[in-house]
Amino acid sequence: MTAPRIISRIAARALRRSPLHPLPRSTLAPTKLSPTGYTSVRLGSTLPPRADFTKPTEEHIKELRTLLSSNASLISTIDGSATPDELQAFNDDWMNKYHGKSPIVVKPKTTEEVSKVMKYCYDKGLAVVPQGGNTGLVGGSNPVHDEIILNLSNLSHIRSFDPVSGIFVADAGVILEVADNYLAERGFIFPLDLGAKGSCHIGGNVATNAGGLRLLRYGSLHGTVLGLEVVLPDGTIWNGLSKLRKDNTGFDIKQLFIGSEGTIGIITAISILCPRRPSAMNVAVFSLPSYEAVQKVFGEAKTYLGEILSAFEFFDKQSYALVKKHQEENGETRSVFEQEGDFYCLIETGGSNSEHDEAKLTALLEHLLTSDLVLDGVLAQDSTQFQSIWSLRELIPESAGKAGSVYKYDVSVPVGKMYGLVEKMRERLRKEGVLEGDGNPEGPIRAVAGYGHMGDGNLHINIVANKYTEEIEKIIEPYVYEIVAENEGSISAEHGLGVMKAPYIGYSQNETSVEVMKKIKNLFDPKGLLNPYKYIV
Amino acid sequence: MTAPRIISRIAARALRRSPLHPLPRSTLAPTKLSPTGYTSVRLGSTLPPRADFTKPTEEHIKELRTLLSSNASLISTIDGSATPDELQAFNDDWMNKYHGKSPIVVKPKTTEEVSKVMKYCYDKGLAVVPQGGNTGLVGGSNPVHDEIILNLSNLSHIRSFDPVSGIFVADAGVILEVADNYLAERGFIFPLDLGAKGSCHIGGNVATNAGGLRLLRYGSLHGTVLGLEVVLPDGTIWNGLSKLRKDNTGFDIKQLFIGSEGTIGIITAISILCPRRPSAMNVAVFSLPSYEAVQKVFGEAKTYLGEILSAFEFFDKQSYALVKKHQEENGETRSVFEQEGDFYCLIETGGSNSEHDEAKLTALLEHLLTSDLVLDGVLAQDSTQFQSIWSLRELIPESAGKAGSVYKYDVSVPVGKMYGLVEKMRERLRKEGVLEGDGNPEGPIRAVAGYGHMGDGNLHINIVANKYTEEIEKIIEPYVYEIVAENEGSISAEHGLGVMKAPYIGYSQNETSVEVMKKIKNLFDPKGLLNPYKYIV
Repeated sequence: MTAPRIISRIAARALRRSPLHPLPRSTLAPTKLSPTGYTSVRLGSTLPPRADFTKPTEEHIKELRTLLSSNASLISTIDGSATPDELQAFNDDWMNKYHGKSPIVVKPKTTEEVSKVMKYCYDKGLAVVPQGGNTGLVGGSNPVHDEIILNLSNLSHIRSFDPVSGIFVADAGVILEVADNYLAERGFIFPLDLGAKGSCHIGGNVATNAGGLRLLRYGSLHGTVLGLEVVLPDGTIWNGLSKLRKDNTGFDIKQLFIGSEGTIGIITAISILCPRRPSAMNVAVFSLPSYEAVQKVFGEAKTYLGEILSAFEFFDKQSYALVKKHQEENGETRSVFEQEGDFYCLIETGGSNSEHDEAKLTALLEHLLTSDLVLDGVLAQDSTQFQSIWSLRELIPESAGKAGSVYKYDVSVPVGKMYGLVEKMRERLRKEGVLEGDGNPEGPIRAVAGYGHMGDGNLHINIVANKYTEEIEKIIEPYVYEIVAENEGSISAEHGLGVMKAPYIGYSQNETSVEVMKKIKNLFDPKGLLNPYKYIV
Repeated sequence: MTAPRIISRIAARALRRSPLHPLPRSTLAPTKLSPTGYTSVRLGSTLPPRADFTKPTEEHIKELRTLLSSNASLISTIDGSATPDELQAFNDDWMNKYHGKSPIVVKPKTTEEVSKVMKYCYDKGLAVVPQGGNTGLVGGSNPVHDEIILNLSNLSHIRSFDPVSGIFVADAGVILEVADNYLAERGFIFPLDLGAKGSCHIGGNVATNAGGLRLLRYGSLHGTVLGLEVVLPDGTIWNGLSKLRKDNTGFDIKQLFIGSEGTIGIITAISILCPRRPSAMNVAVFSLPSYEAVQKVFGEAKTYLGEILSAFEFFDKQSYALVKKHQEENGETRSVFEQEGDFYCLIETGGSNSEHDEAKLTALLEHLLTSDLVLDGVLAQDSTQFQSIWSLRELIPESAGKAGSVYKYDVSVPVGKMYGLVEKMRERLRKEGVLEGDGNPEGPIRAVAGYGHMGDGNLHINIVANKYTEEIEKIIEPYVYEIVAENEGSISAEHGLGVMKAPYIGYSQNETSVEVMKKIKNLFDPKGLLNPYKYIV
């Protein structure tokens, strides 16, 4: 009998909670993974350098320097202003999976400088990769060959905030956590949150249409972004930095840039509608016997919590095992659950009245106990527990990376079919004899972990191998995309296409879509100079 | 002392309320206004017919009929299958303001028929106007000259609804109220509501990016629409009818069609995310002494009601006077307020727990009373009162139309500056000696009424004249657009551009924006055959 235990644990913790301004939970700083992580073999684009692009030279560097207010805003191995090591942090992605060969990094300080640099590059035929916090997972912000890296970290000013409307305007290079902390001090919240918040840029978030942890509550950036300032490939500054919640005067151009992954323009500033920060926040985590139970609890959470439900995340026992192992290696040995399960779910609420929220949450908990849908559960009683419960979910990617070489997939399918994809993948790997287990004690696949954002139908599959091999990749791909397509799903729910998924767009988009996309790319960037070899190729 | 009155009135009504499924409030059926309404003089486009368009003939009609499954799907004055009177309902807008001269109306029954008709028209060079419920306010759904009217009312099937995800898929010609009633029976709500819900089509709502009454709560269609099926100008069917909440595989093409006003494709079906219907709804209306008080009450409502605030509407005493007169003419003489004010605001809440919602609302009301921000207030105690309170706001446009010829403007500016536009307009009309009053007892301007969606910064200005004259128009326009532009506002917050505002886009969009928009139009519709003479001209 586990049900009574939950009540007693919850009762003992007495529902004491403080408002969380700002949320003090762990951020997954995108530190480089261990060398057991990804190798560079074959993972980049297989497309050769385009012959019609100009190769960067010392002459270009000299001329580019005249466009910048500071000499430090351009570093290059060509003129010796940087060592290859210094450029590596810009050429490589944080997983150490993709490796560009750019000899030049430019870091303009103003939109006007971005414009001048782009105009120069466009006129000269120099290819450019825009780069924000470089925290992406599909190689979108790294060069494939020798494209010039245009890094936006020097565009980092908050331009304005209106506490009446909640409209926040800031440079693209502002770090998400900086923006959110600024807003927290004023009682507001950035309507997006994700693990990499300590490093990622808000401009990059918009360029990649980041989804993250609270899309369920605040909706997608297509709804919350009100305006953008963008430097087009030819250097034209498009001022679409509207501060209006409603504006029906023509095509909503900014929407094209949201999720365009830097292929048709460089976002230099954003205007976004920020809601009031919930004054009461709660988080609980449960162990459950089955995926069916997770789905049912999701339905009950929507019924009982209604408008205060702000996140509903799930993970399987394989994900939890990875996190536990990672925590144990870091000296954290306390067990969270007295009874573990095959599945886990995390429920967060955010509302304006702590008493009401607690009443709603208590009613849900009491209902869940009588329904036997959950095995065990823990409710955070303070901000430290709030953080540690969130860590169980947020540490999964990092824990998987520590455990081996990870094949990461990010898909969306209808909620009911979501976990079936993980099971199908596990079954395939077992049949192919590569899944670690009784008959196969040495791997090479150590774990297949499934987790994600239940509320958004967004599943992450992490396949942990002892090392990367073409043999394993061929077993996984394109099979994983095929089973997504069978369910009319998306092969990239939130990570984007980048280099990694560009060849597979046909699994989620029909020919007409791809044709229209190519025309749009060509409309903005007829020379194809911006972020080439990626996205729509 | 008015404060104690409110408490007693509210207390006496004892906060009894029933869940509202579906909401039984009045819908403004777009019946034609009286002949005192708009005249057709000059209000349409001044652009001459394009010489490169083909004039429709009897031969075209014969060939078009072969593409349609029913002979009744095409009516025309050319072959005598319809009288001019029968076509008038399609040629005219519901305000009787815009008057097209099309000899042909086609009403396809399937997406495939729409495709065949479009392919035929594209090949022949025949211009086409897509038409939904024909409830727009800017002449967007009526022909300017002899364009063929492609009416979507025969595409009226609900295709699917998933109660787990809340995803609703339906033909474009489904009437908004039909969709909402269907969802209400299943415990869900269409995330859009507006006065014309009894006639407007969901496809037209998306094509015009309708805003309406609950944008404050559910956000814009750019966030809630998940997918579209669109017939492109050349007849190609683009199947972008995604049922995924997240999909980052390339440019989000559907966004271009949201708010495109039928200029680059014909929306034939939509997929939209519908939230659970609030099980508890409340509405209250207040009289207030000043616009400053309205703003303060808006801030307090956000603080006290948080996530349950679903609408915050305001109107001025001139708007209320128009409604009272209209109601009196219809035999409704009960007074709502014991003390009237210069301003009024309507506050709606929608939540999942009636007890909690009432507690929040009561706390707000008690706070407002002690702060003296409101003069009087009424809280609905049942669904009839819920409806009659909403009517005070929703009847304004109809009441203005009954009072004379109305110049209607729909703008957005920052909330703090919003009402200043009405005052400036009134001042200008007074200076020009056209405002009815002590020195000018006969008009010609009988009233200048301001009302709108406070939460969205969206103001409607209705200028009621005894008749339409060029003299008055020149006093109002482009002055009204100039004062909007001075405040970096939008000359069309939610009504769209259509014919009416196409010439004025420059007041809200810069040259780069307009240039990009023209390129997008040309990309999809190089012959310019779809909904010509409008939008971006």
